[in-house]
Amino acid sequence: MSETQMPTPRTRVVREPHRAAYDRETAYRILDEGFLCHVGFAVDGQPFVIPTSYGRKDASLYIHGSAASRMLRQMQKGAVQVCITITLLDGLVLARSVFNHSMNYRSVVILGKATLVDDPEEKLAALKTLSEHILPGRWDDSRQPNDRELKQTSVLRVPIEEFSAKVRTGPAIDDEEDYAFPTWAGVVPLEMVAGSPIDDARLLQGTEVPEYARHYTRKRQEMA
Amino acid sequence: MSETQMPTPRTRVVREPHRAAYDRETAYRILDEGFLCHVGFAVDGQPFVIPTSYGRKDASLYIHGSAASRMLRQMQKGAVQVCITITLLDGLVLARSVFNHSMNYRSVVILGKATLVDDPEEKLAALKTLSEHILPGRWDDSRQPNDRELKQTSVLRVPIEEFSAKVRTGPAIDDEEDYAFPTWAGVVPLEMVAGSPIDDARLLQGTEVPEYARHYTRKRQEMA
Repeated sequence: MSETQMPTPRTRVVREPHRAAYDRETAYRILDEGFLCHVGFAVDGQPFVIPTSYGRKDASLYIHGSAASRMLRQMQKGAVQVCITITLLDGLVLARSVFNHSMNYRSVVILGKATLVDDPEEKLAALKTLSEHILPGRWDDSRQPNDRELKQTSVLRVPIEEFSAKVRTGPAIDDEEDYAFPTWAGVVPLEMVAGSPIDDARLLQGTEVPEYARHYTRKRQEMA
Repeated sequence: MSETQMPTPRTRVVREPHRAAYDRETAYRILDEGFLCHVGFAVDGQPFVIPTSYGRKDASLYIHGSAASRMLRQMQKGAVQVCITITLLDGLVLARSVFNHSMNYRSVVILGKATLVDDPEEKLAALKTLSEHILPGRWDDSRQPNDRELKQTSVLRVPIEEFSAKVRTGPAIDDEEDYAFPTWAGVVPLEMVAGSPIDDARLLQGTEVPEYARHYTRKRQEMA
Protein backbone atom coordinates (compact mmCIF):
# COMPACT_ATOMS: atom_id res chain seq x y z
CA MET A 1 0.00 0.00 0.00
CA SER A 2 2.58 2.56 -0.98
CA GLU A 3 0.85 3.80 -4.12
CA THR A 4 0.71 7.55 -4.25
CA GLN A 5 -1.85 9.36 -6.31
CA MET A 6 -1.28 12.80 -7.64
CA PRO A 7 -4.05 15.12 -6.52
CA THR A 8 -6.52 16.20 -9.16
CA PRO A 9 -7.24 19.92 -9.45
CA ARG A 10 -10.38 19.26 -7.41
CA THR A 11 -8.72 17.43 -4.54
CA ARG A 12 -5.55 19.46 -4.37
CA VAL A 13 -5.43 21.04 -0.91
CA VAL A 14 -5.45 24.80 -1.44
CA ARG A 15 -5.07 25.99 2.13
CA GLU A 16 -1.93 24.89 4.02
CA PRO A 17 -0.75 22.48 1.31
CA HIS A 18 2.09 21.23 3.55
CA ARG A 19 -0.57 19.42 5.60
CA ALA A 20 -1.91 17.51 2.62
CA ALA A 21 -1.39 13.85 1.86
CA TYR A 22 -2.48 12.01 -1.24
CA ASP A 23 -1.40 8.47 -0.47
CA ARG A 24 -3.78 5.61 0.27
CA GLU A 25 -2.01 4.55 3.44
CA THR A 26 -2.63 7.88 5.15
CA ALA A 27 -6.22 8.05 3.89
CA TYR A 28 -7.06 4.46 4.86
CA ARG A 29 -5.64 4.92 8.35
CA ILE A 30 -8.00 7.84 8.90
CA LEU A 31 -10.94 6.10 7.22
CA ASP A 32 -10.45 3.01 9.37
CA GLU A 33 -10.33 4.95 12.63
CA GLY A 34 -13.47 6.90 11.83
CA PHE A 35 -16.94 5.58 11.09
CA LEU A 36 -18.96 8.79 10.81
CA CYS A 37 -18.85 10.73 7.57
CA HIS A 38 -20.58 13.78 6.17
CA VAL A 39 -21.99 13.21 2.69
CA GLY A 40 -22.45 16.22 0.45
CA PHE A 41 -24.64 16.25 -2.63
CA ALA A 42 -26.51 18.93 -4.51
CA VAL A 43 -30.18 19.08 -5.41
CA ASP A 44 -30.99 21.81 -7.93
CA GLY A 45 -27.85 23.70 -6.93
CA GLN A 46 -28.56 23.53 -3.20
CA PRO A 47 -25.90 21.57 -1.35
CA PHE A 48 -26.93 19.18 1.42
CA VAL A 49 -24.58 17.69 3.99
CA ILE A 50 -25.85 14.63 5.83
CA PRO A 51 -24.08 12.71 8.61
CA THR A 52 -24.08 8.95 8.30
CA SER A 53 -21.93 5.96 9.15
CA TYR A 54 -19.74 4.22 6.62
CA GLY A 55 -17.59 1.17 6.14
CA ARG A 56 -14.51 0.72 4.02
CA LYS A 57 -13.43 -2.33 2.08
CA ASP A 58 -10.37 -2.01 -0.12
CA ALA A 59 -10.93 1.01 -2.36
CA SER A 60 -14.68 1.20 -1.72
CA LEU A 61 -16.61 3.20 0.82
CA TYR A 62 -20.11 1.98 1.63
CA ILE A 63 -22.95 3.94 3.14
CA HIS A 64 -26.51 2.83 3.67
CA GLY A 65 -29.88 4.13 4.60
CA SER A 66 -33.55 3.92 3.99
CA ALA A 67 -34.76 4.35 0.45
CA ALA A 68 -36.93 7.11 1.93
CA SER A 69 -34.13 9.51 2.64
CA ARG A 70 -33.57 12.64 0.54
CA MET A 71 -30.06 11.59 -0.34
CA LEU A 72 -31.02 8.15 -1.54
CA ARG A 73 -34.12 9.39 -3.29
CA GLN A 74 -31.86 11.66 -5.30
CA MET A 75 -29.70 8.69 -6.12
CA GLN A 76 -32.53 6.64 -7.55
CA LYS A 77 -32.14 8.76 -10.66
CA GLY A 78 -28.68 7.34 -11.23
CA ALA A 79 -25.17 7.84 -9.98
CA VAL A 80 -24.89 11.04 -8.01
CA GLN A 81 -21.83 13.20 -7.64
CA VAL A 82 -20.93 13.30 -3.94
CA CYS A 83 -18.26 14.52 -1.59
CA ILE A 84 -17.66 12.40 1.48
CA THR A 85 -15.66 13.92 4.29
CA ILE A 86 -14.34 12.20 7.40
CA THR A 87 -12.87 14.27 10.22
CA LEU A 88 -11.11 13.09 13.35
CA LEU A 89 -10.57 15.83 15.90
CA ASP A 90 -7.42 15.41 17.98
CA GLY A 91 -7.03 18.60 19.93
CA LEU A 92 -7.29 22.33 20.43
CA VAL A 93 -4.06 24.17 19.75
CA LEU A 94 -3.66 27.25 21.94
CA ALA A 95 -1.12 29.70 20.58
CA ARG A 96 -0.01 32.99 22.16
CA SER A 97 -1.73 35.01 19.45
CA VAL A 98 -5.42 34.68 18.60
CA PHE A 99 -4.38 34.36 14.96
CA ASN A 100 -2.22 31.26 15.44
CA HIS A 101 -4.79 29.23 17.34
CA SER A 102 -5.55 26.01 15.51
CA MET A 103 -6.79 22.47 15.84
CA ASN A 104 -5.12 19.14 15.49
CA TYR A 105 -7.15 16.93 13.21
CA ARG A 106 -7.00 14.32 10.48
CA SER A 107 -9.45 14.46 7.61
CA VAL A 108 -10.15 12.80 4.29
CA VAL A 109 -12.18 14.24 1.43
CA ILE A 110 -13.39 11.85 -1.27
CA LEU A 111 -15.01 13.03 -4.49
CA GLY A 112 -16.87 10.56 -6.60
CA LYS A 113 -20.06 9.10 -7.92
CA ALA A 114 -22.24 7.12 -5.56
CA THR A 115 -23.91 4.12 -7.14
CA LEU A 116 -26.56 1.80 -5.73
CA VAL A 117 -25.41 -1.71 -4.88
CA ASP A 118 -28.16 -3.79 -6.48
CA ASP A 119 -26.85 -7.34 -6.46
CA PRO A 120 -28.29 -9.06 -3.33
CA GLU A 121 -25.08 -10.89 -2.45
CA GLU A 122 -22.96 -7.81 -2.89
CA LYS A 123 -25.46 -5.83 -0.84
CA LEU A 124 -25.32 -8.28 2.04
CA ALA A 125 -21.53 -8.27 1.90
CA ALA A 126 -21.49 -4.47 1.91
CA LEU A 127 -23.78 -4.36 4.94
CA LYS A 128 -21.45 -6.75 6.73
CA THR A 129 -18.52 -4.50 5.80
CA LEU A 130 -20.37 -1.55 7.30
CA SER A 131 -21.27 -3.41 10.46
CA GLU A 132 -17.81 -4.84 10.99
CA HIS A 133 -16.21 -1.47 10.29
CA ILE A 134 -18.17 0.12 13.11
CA LEU A 135 -18.24 -2.77 15.56
CA PRO A 136 -16.01 -5.72 14.66
CA GLY A 137 -17.55 -8.97 15.81
CA ARG A 138 -21.11 -7.73 16.06
CA TRP A 139 -22.43 -9.11 12.77
CA ASP A 140 -22.20 -12.77 13.76
CA ASP A 141 -23.83 -12.07 17.14
CA SER A 142 -26.88 -10.41 15.61
CA ARG A 143 -30.06 -11.71 14.05
CA GLN A 144 -29.28 -11.66 10.33
CA PRO A 145 -31.16 -9.46 7.85
CA ASN A 146 -34.19 -11.01 6.19
CA ASP A 147 -35.45 -10.31 2.67
CA ARG A 148 -37.89 -7.62 3.76
CA GLU A 149 -35.16 -5.74 5.64
CA LEU A 150 -32.72 -6.03 2.78
CA LYS A 151 -35.31 -4.59 0.42
CA GLN A 152 -35.88 -1.65 2.77
CA THR A 153 -32.20 -0.85 2.92
CA SER A 154 -30.29 0.91 0.20
CA VAL A 155 -26.55 0.53 0.00
CA LEU A 156 -24.34 2.92 -1.88
CA ARG A 157 -20.78 2.45 -3.01
CA VAL A 158 -18.38 5.31 -3.55
CA PRO A 159 -14.99 4.45 -5.05
CA ILE A 160 -11.99 5.80 -3.17
CA GLU A 161 -10.23 7.11 -6.24
CA GLU A 162 -10.19 10.88 -6.12
CA PHE A 163 -9.30 11.87 -2.58
CA SER A 164 -7.04 13.89 -0.36
CA ALA A 165 -6.13 13.77 3.30
CA LYS A 166 -5.15 16.62 5.56
CA VAL A 167 -3.41 16.27 8.87
CA ARG A 168 -2.32 18.73 11.54
CA THR A 169 -0.37 17.48 14.53
CA GLY A 170 1.93 18.94 17.12
CA PRO A 171 2.31 22.13 19.09
CA ALA A 172 1.27 25.70 18.40
CA ILE A 173 3.40 27.64 15.97
CA ASP A 174 3.64 31.24 17.08
CA ASP A 175 5.35 34.20 15.46
CA GLU A 176 8.84 34.44 16.89
CA GLU A 177 8.20 37.71 18.71
CA ASP A 178 5.10 36.26 20.40
CA TYR A 179 7.03 33.68 22.42
CA ALA A 180 7.68 36.46 24.93
CA PHE A 181 3.95 37.08 25.34
CA PRO A 182 2.96 36.05 28.88
CA THR A 183 0.19 33.51 28.36
CA TRP A 184 -0.13 29.77 28.54
CA ALA A 185 0.19 27.93 25.25
CA GLY A 186 -0.13 24.28 24.45
CA VAL A 187 -2.49 21.59 23.26
CA VAL A 188 -5.70 20.32 24.83
CA PRO A 189 -6.00 16.77 23.48
CA LEU A 190 -9.47 15.66 22.38
CA GLU A 191 -10.58 12.11 21.91
CA MET A 192 -13.81 10.26 21.36
CA VAL A 193 -14.08 7.69 24.11
CA ALA A 194 -16.60 4.99 24.91
CA GLY A 195 -18.26 4.79 28.30
CA SER A 196 -19.54 1.72 30.11
CA PRO A 197 -22.09 -0.17 28.04
CA ILE A 198 -25.71 0.27 29.14
CA ASP A 199 -27.70 -2.98 29.25
CA ASP A 200 -30.98 -3.04 27.41
CA ALA A 201 -33.92 -3.30 29.82
CA ARG A 202 -35.16 -6.48 28.17
CA LEU A 203 -31.96 -8.53 28.04
CA LEU A 204 -32.38 -12.26 28.47
CA GLN A 205 -31.12 -13.32 31.88
CA GLY A 206 -27.41 -14.06 32.02
CA THR A 207 -26.53 -12.17 28.82
CA GLU A 208 -23.04 -10.74 29.21
CA VAL A 209 -21.67 -7.61 27.60
CA PRO A 210 -19.47 -8.80 24.73
CA GLU A 211 -15.83 -7.80 24.62
CA TYR A 212 -16.28 -5.56 21.54
CA ALA A 213 -18.80 -3.45 23.46
CA ARG A 214 -17.03 -3.50 26.81
CA HIS A 215 -13.74 -2.18 25.47
CA TYR A 216 -14.85 -0.23 22.47
CA THR A 217 -12.16 1.86 20.86
CA ARG A 218 -11.43 3.25 17.43
CA LYS A 219 -7.67 3.06 17.84
CA ARG A 220 -6.21 0.77 15.21
CA GLN A 221 -2.92 -0.99 15.70
CA GLU A 222 -2.34 -1.86 12.09
CA MET A 223 -3.46 -0.98 8.66
CA ALA A 224 -6.51 -2.92 7.51
CA MET B 1 -36.61 31.21 22.92
CA SER B 2 -39.73 29.22 22.29
CA GLU B 3 -40.27 30.29 18.71
CA THR B 4 -40.96 27.33 16.49
CA GLN B 5 -40.31 27.49 12.78
CA MET B 6 -42.15 25.36 10.34
CA PRO B 7 -39.71 23.35 8.25
CA THR B 8 -39.34 24.40 4.65
CA PRO B 9 -39.61 21.68 2.01
CA ARG B 10 -35.81 21.67 1.96
CA THR B 11 -35.24 21.27 5.68
CA ARG B 12 -38.12 18.91 6.38
CA VAL B 13 -36.63 15.69 7.74
CA VAL B 14 -37.60 12.95 5.29
CA ARG B 15 -36.19 9.93 7.07
CA GLU B 16 -37.53 9.18 10.57
CA PRO B 17 -39.52 12.41 10.87
CA HIS B 18 -40.37 11.65 14.52
CA ARG B 19 -36.75 12.46 15.35
CA ALA B 20 -36.92 15.92 13.82
CA ALA B 21 -37.09 19.22 15.68
CA TYR B 22 -37.54 22.62 14.16
CA ASP B 23 -37.33 24.88 17.21
CA ARG B 24 -34.44 27.20 17.96
CA GLU B 25 -33.96 25.97 21.51
CA THR B 26 -33.14 22.44 20.39
CA ALA B 27 -30.93 23.68 17.55
CA TYR B 28 -29.05 26.20 19.70
CA ARG B 29 -28.37 23.63 22.40
CA ILE B 30 -26.69 21.40 19.82
CA LEU B 31 -24.89 24.29 18.13
CA ASP B 32 -23.55 25.50 21.46
CA GLU B 33 -22.22 22.11 22.50
CA GLY B 34 -20.46 21.56 19.18
CA PHE B 35 -17.79 23.67 17.56
CA LEU B 36 -16.88 21.62 14.49
CA CYS B 37 -19.12 21.82 11.46
CA HIS B 38 -19.03 20.46 7.93
CA VAL B 39 -19.67 23.11 5.30
CA GLY B 40 -21.08 22.03 1.98
CA PHE B 41 -20.97 24.12 -1.17
CA ALA B 42 -20.99 23.34 -4.86
CA VAL B 43 -18.49 24.40 -7.51
CA ASP B 44 -19.72 23.74 -11.05
CA GLY B 45 -22.10 21.08 -9.75
CA GLN B 46 -19.44 19.27 -7.71
CA PRO B 47 -20.24 19.33 -4.00
CA PHE B 48 -17.44 19.92 -1.51
CA VAL B 49 -17.68 19.25 2.22
CA ILE B 50 -15.07 20.93 4.38
CA PRO B 51 -14.63 20.62 8.15
CA THR B 52 -14.11 23.83 10.06
CA SER B 53 -14.84 25.38 13.42
CA TYR B 54 -17.69 27.78 14.01
CA GLY B 55 -19.13 30.13 16.58
CA ARG B 56 -22.73 31.10 17.17
CA LYS B 57 -24.08 34.45 18.26
CA ASP B 58 -27.85 34.83 18.36
CA ALA B 59 -29.19 33.73 14.97
CA SER B 60 -25.80 33.91 13.22
CA LEU B 61 -23.23 31.24 12.65
CA TYR B 62 -19.69 32.43 11.92
CA ILE B 63 -16.92 30.53 10.22
CA HIS B 64 -13.51 31.80 9.23
CA GLY B 65 -10.48 30.86 7.27
CA SER B 66 -7.78 32.06 5.01
CA ALA B 67 -8.78 33.92 1.90
CA ALA B 68 -6.73 31.26 0.09
CA SER B 69 -9.10 28.41 0.73
CA ARG B 70 -11.26 26.94 -2.02
CA MET B 71 -14.42 27.60 -0.06
CA LEU B 72 -13.67 31.24 0.58
CA ARG B 73 -12.32 31.78 -2.90
CA GLN B 74 -15.68 30.63 -4.21
CA MET B 75 -17.35 33.10 -1.89
CA GLN B 76 -15.43 36.08 -3.17
CA LYS B 77 -17.83 36.02 -6.11
CA GLY B 78 -20.69 36.86 -3.81
CA ALA B 79 -22.99 35.11 -1.41
CA VAL B 80 -22.74 31.36 -1.78
CA GLN B 81 -25.43 28.82 -1.06
CA VAL B 82 -24.17 26.53 1.68
CA CYS B 83 -25.30 23.73 3.92
CA ILE B 84 -23.71 23.64 7.36
CA THR B 85 -24.09 20.47 9.37
CA ILE B 86 -23.15 19.89 12.99
CA THR B 87 -23.20 16.36 14.40
CA LEU B 88 -22.70 15.25 17.99
CA LEU B 89 -22.27 11.51 18.35
CA ASP B 90 -23.63 10.10 21.62
CA GLY B 91 -23.48 6.35 21.27
CA LEU B 92 -23.70 3.11 19.36
CA VAL B 93 -27.06 1.39 19.66
CA LEU B 94 -26.77 -2.38 19.54
CA ALA B 95 -30.05 -4.09 18.70
CA ARG B 96 -30.70 -7.82 18.46
CA SER B 97 -31.14 -7.63 14.70
CA VAL B 98 -28.54 -6.22 12.34
CA PHE B 99 -31.30 -4.12 10.81
CA ASN B 100 -32.23 -2.27 14.00
CA HIS B 101 -28.73 -1.20 14.93
CA SER B 102 -28.51 2.53 15.17
CA MET B 103 -26.64 5.47 16.67
CA ASN B 104 -27.57 8.05 19.22
CA TYR B 105 -26.74 11.49 17.92
CA ARG B 106 -27.86 15.09 17.74
CA SER B 107 -27.46 17.02 14.53
CA VAL B 108 -28.39 20.35 13.00
CA VAL B 109 -28.56 21.15 9.30
CA ILE B 110 -28.59 24.82 8.27
CA LEU B 111 -29.25 25.94 4.71
CA GLY B 112 -28.44 29.47 3.74
CA LYS B 113 -26.29 31.98 1.99
CA ALA B 114 -22.84 32.67 3.39
CA THR B 115 -21.78 36.30 3.17
CA LEU B 116 -18.42 37.87 3.90
CA VAL B 117 -18.22 40.04 6.99
CA ASP B 118 -16.46 43.12 5.66
CA ASP B 119 -16.85 45.73 8.37
CA PRO B 120 -13.65 45.65 10.50
CA GLU B 121 -15.46 46.05 13.83
CA GLU B 122 -18.02 43.40 13.00
CA LYS B 123 -15.21 41.13 11.80
CA LEU B 124 -13.29 41.49 15.05
CA ALA B 125 -16.48 40.85 17.04
CA ALA B 126 -17.20 37.75 14.94
CA LEU B 127 -13.69 36.41 15.53
CA LYS B 128 -14.18 36.91 19.25
CA THR B 129 -17.50 35.07 19.02
CA LEU B 130 -15.72 32.18 17.30
CA SER B 131 -12.90 32.10 19.83
CA GLU B 132 -15.18 32.32 22.85
CA HIS B 133 -17.50 29.69 21.40
CA ILE B 134 -14.66 27.19 21.21
CA LEU B 135 -12.72 28.18 24.30
CA PRO B 136 -14.48 30.65 26.59
CA GLY B 137 -11.98 32.94 28.32
CA ARG B 138 -9.17 32.45 25.84
CA TRP B 139 -9.62 35.66 23.82
CA ASP B 140 -8.58 38.02 26.60
CA ASP B 141 -5.54 35.89 27.45
CA SER B 142 -4.19 35.96 23.90
CA ARG B 143 -2.21 38.46 21.91
CA GLN B 144 -4.90 40.33 19.97
CA PRO B 145 -5.14 40.29 16.17
CA ASN B 146 -3.27 43.03 14.33
CA ASP B 147 -4.29 44.65 11.06
CA ARG B 148 -2.22 42.34 8.91
CA GLU B 149 -3.76 39.27 10.52
CA LEU B 150 -7.26 40.64 10.22
CA LYS B 151 -6.70 41.26 6.53
CA GLN B 152 -5.49 37.68 6.05
CA THR B 153 -8.58 36.27 7.71
CA SER B 154 -11.96 36.00 6.07
CA VAL B 155 -15.05 35.71 8.20
CA LEU B 156 -18.33 34.41 6.88
CA ARG B 157 -21.76 34.76 8.38
CA VAL B 158 -24.56 32.30 7.76
CA PRO B 159 -27.98 33.20 9.15
CA ILE B 160 -29.66 30.50 11.23
CA GLU B 161 -33.02 30.83 9.53
CA GLU B 162 -33.69 27.69 7.53
CA PHE B 163 -32.67 24.78 9.69
CA SER B 164 -33.66 21.47 11.19
CA ALA B 165 -32.39 19.36 14.04
CA LYS B 166 -32.50 15.61 14.40
CA VAL B 167 -32.05 13.72 17.61
CA ARG B 168 -31.93 10.06 18.51
CA THR B 169 -31.67 9.04 22.15
CA GLY B 170 -32.42 5.98 24.22
CA PRO B 171 -32.23 2.22 23.86
CA ALA B 172 -32.42 -0.08 20.88
CA ILE B 173 -35.86 -0.68 19.42
CA ASP B 174 -36.13 -4.26 18.26
CA ASP B 175 -38.95 -6.07 16.53
CA GLU B 176 -41.08 -7.70 19.20
CA GLU B 177 -40.18 -11.26 18.15
CA ASP B 178 -36.45 -10.44 18.31
CA TYR B 179 -36.44 -9.84 22.08
CA ALA B 180 -36.13 -13.60 22.45
CA PHE B 181 -32.97 -13.65 20.32
CA PRO B 182 -30.03 -14.58 22.57
CA THR B 183 -27.57 -11.74 22.16
CA TRP B 184 -26.52 -8.74 24.18
CA ALA B 185 -28.25 -5.48 23.32
CA GLY B 186 -27.73 -2.02 24.69
CA VAL B 187 -25.95 1.24 24.16
CA VAL B 188 -22.23 1.99 24.09
CA PRO B 189 -22.05 5.69 25.06
CA LEU B 190 -19.61 7.83 23.11
CA GLU B 191 -18.30 11.17 24.17
CA MET B 192 -15.62 13.59 23.10
CA VAL B 193 -13.40 14.18 26.11
CA ALA B 194 -10.41 16.39 26.74
CA GLY B 195 -7.16 14.99 28.08
CA SER B 196 -4.55 16.69 30.23
CA PRO B 197 -3.24 19.85 28.58
CA ILE B 198 0.23 19.57 27.06
CA ASP B 199 2.52 22.50 27.86
CA ASP B 200 4.20 24.19 24.95
CA ALA B 201 7.98 23.62 25.01
CA ARG B 202 8.69 27.32 25.05
CA LEU B 203 6.40 28.46 27.87
CA LEU B 204 7.67 31.33 29.99
CA GLN B 205 8.69 30.06 33.40
CA GLY B 206 5.88 29.88 35.92
CA THR B 207 3.05 29.97 33.36
CA GLU B 208 0.16 27.94 34.71
CA VAL B 209 -2.44 26.05 32.70
CA PRO B 210 -5.59 28.20 32.76
CA GLU B 211 -8.81 26.77 34.13
CA TYR B 212 -10.52 26.75 30.71
CA ALA B 213 -7.81 24.45 29.35
CA ARG B 214 -7.41 22.30 32.45
CA HIS B 215 -11.08 21.35 32.66
CA TYR B 216 -12.18 21.65 29.08
CA THR B 217 -15.64 20.35 28.37
CA ARG B 218 -18.38 21.01 25.84
CA LYS B 219 -21.20 20.24 28.25
CA ARG B 220 -23.40 23.27 28.70
CA GLN B 221 -25.49 23.84 31.80
CA GLU B 222 -27.76 26.45 30.34
CA MET B 223 -28.87 27.80 27.04
CA ALA B 224 -26.68 30.61 25.74
